[in-house]
Amino acid sequence: MDIKKFREAGYAAIDKICDYYGSLETKPVIAQVEPGWLSKALPTEAPQKGEPFERVEEDFQKLILPGITHWQHPSFFAYFPSPVTFEGILGDLYSSSLSNPGFNWICSPACTELESVVMDWAAKLFGLQEEFHVASGKGGGVIMSTASEAALTALVAARSRFQTKYPDVPLEKLVIYGTTQTHIMGKKAAAILGLQFRPLKVIKGDNYSLRGKVLKKALEEDQRKGLKPFGLIATIGTTSSGAIDNVEEIGQILRDYPDIWLHVDAAWAGVVLSCPEYRDVAQLPAINKYATSFCTNFHKWGLVNFDASTLWVRERTDLTNALDLTPEYLRTKHGDSGAVIDYRNWQLPLGRKFRALKIWFVLRGFGVEGFQAHIRKGIKLAQLFADHLQLPSNVSPRFELVTPVSFSLVVFRLLPPGDRSEMATEEINELNKAYFARLSARSDSIFLVQTLLDDIFCIRFAVGAERTGPEHIGGAWKIIKEEAEGALEEWSKSTAKARL
Amino acid sequence: MDIKKFREAGYAAIDKICDYYGSLETKPVIAQVEPGWLSKALPTEAPQKGEPFERVEEDFQKLILPGITHWQHPSFFAYFPSPVTFEGILGDLYSSSLSNPGFNWICSPACTELESVVMDWAAKLFGLQEEFHVASGKGGGVIMSTASEAALTALVAARSRFQTKYPDVPLEKLVIYGTTQTHIMGKKAAAILGLQFRPLKVIKGDNYSLRGKVLKKALEEDQRKGLKPFGLIATIGTTSSGAIDNVEEIGQILRDYPDIWLHVDAAWAGVVLSCPEYRDVAQLPAINKYATSFCTNFHKWGLVNFDASTLWVRERTDLTNALDLTPEYLRTKHGDSGAVIDYRNWQLPLGRKFRALKIWFVLRGFGVEGFQAHIRKGIKLAQLFADHLQLPSNVSPRFELVTPVSFSLVVFRLLPPGDRSEMATEEINELNKAYFARLSARSDSIFLVQTLLDDIFCIRFAVGAERTGPEHIGGAWKIIKEEAEGALEEWSKSTAKARL
Repeated sequence: MDIKKFREAGYAAIDKICDYYGSLETKPVIAQVEPGWLSKALPTEAPQKGEPFERVEEDFQKLILPGITHWQHPSFFAYFPSPVTFEGILGDLYSSSLSNPGFNWICSPACTELESVVMDWAAKLFGLQEEFHVASGKGGGVIMSTASEAALTALVAARSRFQTKYPDVPLEKLVIYGTTQTHIMGKKAAAILGLQFRPLKVIKGDNYSLRGKVLKKALEEDQRKGLKPFGLIATIGTTSSGAIDNVEEIGQILRDYPDIWLHVDAAWAGVVLSCPEYRDVAQLPAINKYATSFCTNFHKWGLVNFDASTLWVRERTDLTNALDLTPEYLRTKHGDSGAVIDYRNWQLPLGRKFRALKIWFVLRGFGVEGFQAHIRKGIKLAQLFADHLQLPSNVSPRFELVTPVSFSLVVFRLLPPGDRSEMATEEINELNKAYFARLSARSDSIFLVQTLLDDIFCIRFAVGAERTGPEHIGGAWKIIKEEAEGALEEWSKSTAKARL
Repeated sequence: MDIKKFREAGYAAIDKICDYYGSLETKPVIAQVEPGWLSKALPTEAPQKGEPFERVEEDFQKLILPGITHWQHPSFFAYFPSPVTFEGILGDLYSSSLSNPGFNWICSPACTELESVVMDWAAKLFGLQEEFHVASGKGGGVIMSTASEAALTALVAARSRFQTKYPDVPLEKLVIYGTTQTHIMGKKAAAILGLQFRPLKVIKGDNYSLRGKVLKKALEEDQRKGLKPFGLIATIGTTSSGAIDNVEEIGQILRDYPDIWLHVDAAWAGVVLSCPEYRDVAQLPAINKYATSFCTNFHKWGLVNFDASTLWVRERTDLTNALDLTPEYLRTKHGDSGAVIDYRNWQLPLGRKFRALKIWFVLRGFGVEGFQAHIRKGIKLAQLFADHLQLPSNVSPRFELVTPVSFSLVVFRLLPPGDRSEMATEEINELNKAYFARLSARSDSIFLVQTLLDDIFCIRFAVGAERTGPEHIGGAWKIIKEEAEGALEEWSKSTAKARL
């Protein structure tokens, strides 16, 4: 494809993307396709001769788009939001046009330097203290693909730091701490590293938050057993229910265990720190006091297209001591002199994309105020939804907030009529599973996912798409109520039948 | 930014990218900036209010572009190529517009299914046998960020497979094998996993290829010591010199060590397998017979923008046994039924980009023949450069090919006048370091990097950018000869002075 052809194809692509966003609301939220449909529709090998772009683009519209679940749809309430903004698309487009593997400064100095600049912008946006800023020369921030990569990286650095100090401790004794509500990435990081993961039990009474006393007890137990916890993942906003670990209490306990690396994972909720009024509840003071590393994802609720996970560390040498193994062919005079950051030594893989550009475009396009407005809107809409669930007029169906609303996440379930103190959890779960199946069948209009909190089956309602407004919350509420009525009716019939 | 504004900004971005490629050859190859220039030019925090896109784009042109090293420049001969094709940019653009975290099938079925389809297309393009195809239901391919991520993933699966069979072997006994020429990612993977890495010594006499007898000796030694090698990285085309490990001999030895996972890393050179005439020299028959996993990067010489590293395994359950830890909130009926692939369980991180699209666009746009033509051109141009180096008329300067030309990579050094049998390697190295410094000072016109082969300081010349033609090889040769003359002149003076 030559430049002339690219200009035409590029304009056409921009037009198609405009069409897509113009008609987004008319599309089913979830792709309405069956497994295997695409492989059946495509040839089994690449064409021998190149094809004109028009034909490829036609197939994209005909075959790919129907297989897309629309995360930007205003009625997408599943998982957590995964934004696409026009600013982010443009950032990606320019970045793509300058594609390079970015493993050292000279690969393209602007990639490294803009990353340092935007990571400091973001650190300030979120109120992280100076030690975490690149400009401090001590700590600093780096952009990764995912929060799971960030946690794994932090744990590798933590293990390396621990082993340097205690070279004789066998790997079999090392333990990573999380909670029973920590994202699966904690357990997976341990599995990747071949180490033990200990999920500390958190309870409904604490809103699934890790408390200091629970941590202390576990540490003492493991100490007696000769085990060596060296890393702890604390979460601000768990996936299941948005639970917030008590970083202040954790930090106080860890004062007596200075070899334990405290990684604070705020993959989803970290962006609320952009709003001063949420900094206390999201534990910013404790994070600033105690965290060894902190992660949040711009690509969740933060207006930047996937992938843009941001990791800050208090001591950059903790990363480079573990990960810098520079061979001759990667040496440069700038790297050797220490005058520049070679971000490959802050991460696991060698190569890296120019991701700073899209964050820069988004932060400049929205400004701090625009970013804050987006976060505040999500929180307000989630509260609006929770208000619907809790209307005093809701007699049948009735709903329960299983946990308090956490920022823009609402976790609820449907209650059966009558006195539920007589009912086993399993019985209520059966009702809610049937209810959830009904909601899932409405996948053209709404997308929600389920979770388990202890043994309670719940439904999650996560707000945060840029285009979601009060009218979409109203629409969702209508479906949620309708299907609840249907589920209860079915349930009454089957309960009546069971009694016969 | 609304749709109307995005259309304007998008068109403008496409125009700017056209301008960029139209004027690429007039730009300095390497960014001519000093460390820190960008952070000095930018504000230290994000703006409070959103800014118009024009201002951001203006800054991009003024501040970012001068800090870019132009990997698409036809006179870029450093590292390995990192392509940008217009097809790839368009693939990225569409993908970006549909951004989603892709961790399971329902996230967007098209993302998973197109990945399976293009990985089978690519497997056929490279001649990988059926067991490696997704359609086999047994093995299959997955797209990752980098070859280092792919190798790490393979090694995690290898360790997990080994530990499942031998749960009592302590981690301290486990060893990863590579060679003294294996990319640093081997040693880094071991460091990440906290395991030992044993670099088997490869020698100039074998063109730095790992031979069966060297491997056998090491295995026997480690067996005596009670160590447990569980994974071996063999390379097709090392970074320093394009060396090719003898996979046939390795595979034969490993027949007696069936617990060792053979990962074949062909990050750079794997794409030559698209040309049947290079399949034997690139060890395809042995790869098909013996490799447990195989990796090559479309984002090196394969016309697809970074990142697009492709990994194939012979047994997909080796990956999922190690990496599938699905919690309730990630369960889906399709995943539970086994009817679909959830690629998160084939990789370390949770989230993933829709990278299949750009590979699909490139393979359709170029066709098999266009792809092959690109590879053949690179090989031909490297040979043309090697011919220049070896002209019989080269009396002073004279050059040496330190290793035979490997596909599109030429590794050479400058020879001093006279009989070099009298000279210490270090003396010749000093000449070549001075020579390389001179070449580096021509960074506006050419970009090369150095390497060490054993103790020999060499210069690498790697061809592969889409726009490089014979005229650029000619231009490079002119500079290389000129600076060689200069370096020799300087060297004679300093040698004469030393003799006084």
